[in-house]
Amino acid sequence: MRQTHLFTKTRKDTPKDEISKNADLLIRAGYIHKEMAGVYTLLPLGLRVMNKIEGIIREELDAVGCQEVEMTTLQDPELWRKTNRWTDTVDNWFTTELTNGTPLGLALTHEEALANILKNYITSYRDLPQYIYQIQTKFRNELRAKSGMMRGREFLMKDLYSFNATEEERAVFYDLMKEVYMKIYERVGLGDVTFLTFASGGIFSQFSHEFQTISSAGEDTIYVHPEKKLAINQEVFTDEVISMLNLDKDELVPERAIEVGNIFPLGTKYAEGVGLMFTAEDGTRQAPVMGSYGIGVGRIMGTVVEVHADERGIVWPQAISPYHVHLISLCQEHTDVAQVDAIYEKLKVAGIEVLYDDRLDIRAGAKFADADLMGIPIRLVVSPRTLSAGQIEVKYRAAEEVTEMNIDQFLAAQSSLLC
Amino acid sequence: MRQTHLFTKTRKDTPKDEISKNADLLIRAGYIHKEMAGVYTLLPLGLRVMNKIEGIIREELDAVGCQEVEMTTLQDPELWRKTNRWTDTVDNWFTTELTNGTPLGLALTHEEALANILKNYITSYRDLPQYIYQIQTKFRNELRAKSGMMRGREFLMKDLYSFNATEEERAVFYDLMKEVYMKIYERVGLGDVTFLTFASGGIFSQFSHEFQTISSAGEDTIYVHPEKKLAINQEVFTDEVISMLNLDKDELVPERAIEVGNIFPLGTKYAEGVGLMFTAEDGTRQAPVMGSYGIGVGRIMGTVVEVHADERGIVWPQAISPYHVHLISLCQEHTDVAQVDAIYEKLKVAGIEVLYDDRLDIRAGAKFADADLMGIPIRLVVSPRTLSAGQIEVKYRAAEEVTEMNIDQFLAAQSSLLC
Repeated sequence: MRQTHLFTKTRKDTPKDEISKNADLLIRAGYIHKEMAGVYTLLPLGLRVMNKIEGIIREELDAVGCQEVEMTTLQDPELWRKTNRWTDTVDNWFTTELTNGTPLGLALTHEEALANILKNYITSYRDLPQYIYQIQTKFRNELRAKSGMMRGREFLMKDLYSFNATEEERAVFYDLMKEVYMKIYERVGLGDVTFLTFASGGIFSQFSHEFQTISSAGEDTIYVHPEKKLAINQEVFTDEVISMLNLDKDELVPERAIEVGNIFPLGTKYAEGVGLMFTAEDGTRQAPVMGSYGIGVGRIMGTVVEVHADERGIVWPQAISPYHVHLISLCQEHTDVAQVDAIYEKLKVAGIEVLYDDRLDIRAGAKFADADLMGIPIRLVVSPRTLSAGQIEVKYRAAEEVTEMNIDQFLAAQSSLLC
Repeated sequence: MRQTHLFTKTRKDTPKDEISKNADLLIRAGYIHKEMAGVYTLLPLGLRVMNKIEGIIREELDAVGCQEVEMTTLQDPELWRKTNRWTDTVDNWFTTELTNGTPLGLALTHEEALANILKNYITSYRDLPQYIYQIQTKFRNELRAKSGMMRGREFLMKDLYSFNATEEERAVFYDLMKEVYMKIYERVGLGDVTFLTFASGGIFSQFSHEFQTISSAGEDTIYVHPEKKLAINQEVFTDEVISMLNLDKDELVPERAIEVGNIFPLGTKYAEGVGLMFTAEDGTRQAPVMGSYGIGVGRIMGTVVEVHADERGIVWPQAISPYHVHLISLCQEHTDVAQVDAIYEKLKVAGIEVLYDDRLDIRAGAKFADADLMGIPIRLVVSPRTLSAGQIEVKYRAAEEVTEMNIDQFLAAQSSLLC
């Protein structure tokens, strides 16, 4: 993509009510636009990052046999009254109505909706288990939304629901999901600082599990055991829980953290509430045991920015960077520009995604500052000097050193970038 | 995908209030679930069809330099009051509010939202033209929604907006879009029965243009000139318009038709309304000339079903079929089943998307009826008889003949299926 073609530009200003670091950087670098608190448009660069995060999640879930659907935003309150979640005061519904006055809600989760759909398809234990997910926009009427992409009123979420014949089978899948989730956090660049965290289980089980990423921007406090890669959320941080988990209080370190995912055992409450039943192997009628598994896609994007940014801007991990490399031309002469164009084409033909700063009237310092703000992990600089030496200048966003090599050496070294 | 793994099944029943053919077939075949009138969940097969339609649209738009974004559902009425579209009675807003009582709307279109975003990026004629689109869920509070996927209250739409420095430049892009749209309809299987149709232009120009697909399920009447591939919408079908278009009234045939797309010249009203201005080459301050270009993705899915279905069920064009082939096993014995499994693997390795009816306890007639209802364009049947002959039975959904060949012959003949 030529930067002269991209309609966004870096900005010096940010909306005056924007106090979160992630949204401030993402707005200034041209990834998102703020519509209102907690509501952000994805601009071309931001959409590319989100698509890459989605792609990683989809790959990992499909690999373990999950099936993708897309449920609806508009929801009939009648369904949610069956489980007493229409008047739930923990989550806040946005409500609307049809022209004839019929009230509707904007979905903030989909347990009841999916269980209701499955009434058409599940009649026997032979129809179980089912693991069904979507990557879909959720709405929550948050009182305050001051954390940028980390707490949206409108936000993209991956929500997965499991339906099993027995609690034992549910537990096996639940443990598998702990591994799948950690693989996802590793792939998006949060593995080192993300911890499986014991949290309140509500009415269905003693614990649910969160995935918490250490960050000063976090809204939660967790107590981390770094070696065991475990943590306990403050809400259940009691002597009883610590000893139940065979941990030593002295080895647990308090940290601020961002909840980047959560998984819940749900029991049979929602299935029973909407009337989803199956005939078990022993002939009895039972409700399937459910679990739910969430990851905020936009929250991952915001968290990666919070965790990896430096004083100059964003630093994307390669797997979710909008482009693999940022090619920066410092050439003005027609014949030099033609050579940089040829390098751009050569990189693209090799399967490398390139953002090409082909702007003619911008000085080198401003181009480097823009590149640092935008955070593509590999910067390639071509100038009249490097051209005459047959070289390109290679710099990693996260490092200070600059090396020079020719384009073929770069391509040979970067085969791991190819998609 | 093994059919025993897919959670959906074909259904005999359909919701009693569902009167549209497209939704009836899509529900019975397991593509969609009806949440309420005009609001449908996409089940795994339906999501695959929608993704393929989206992919075709994206390819064609990206090829002519359009840039993709994703704008938000939640909209601030203040922005839409500037152009008097908050109280518009033609389109019907769904409205909601924040917990503090601030009113919000659910976006039914995005002209104002995008023009407002561009105020951050467009200052000079050098920043134009821009062609920006999204594939995003829209909400319209329809009084009645009885046409299945063809008229949704919540529906996926591709909406593209053009921003040009001059009306002449806008007209050139507008004409290009007429070609791009026809290419899209050809690729999704509607080319033969879809006509560029002159329609009311509203206040911005004499005409807008619709793309109308002939179908008895259509809500519109158009007058078609088959040879010239043109039509006139009833709303502007006057002697004056007919003569202006150099057409002969006697050659125009009235048809019921479904509007599968529309493109509008918008003038400068929305840009001016929200204050999007640029400095022209002559130094004056001007508002960019806009155009908008819509395609309902779900409406295309519904229209394809209406147009191509027969009395046995859906008939997908290959380009948007959820799978390339439907492999049907009529084998029960373990050794035979193992051979069909091997054919399934061989097809997948060759890059063919396969739905594999591996159900053991279903008789052949029921399997064929399911396959006909689901509409995958190529059916491959393997039975103990064909196995012993080293053959598979090949039947196209749209044809009656059955031919036999071995798997390698099929693969050699079907290279055009590979994606």
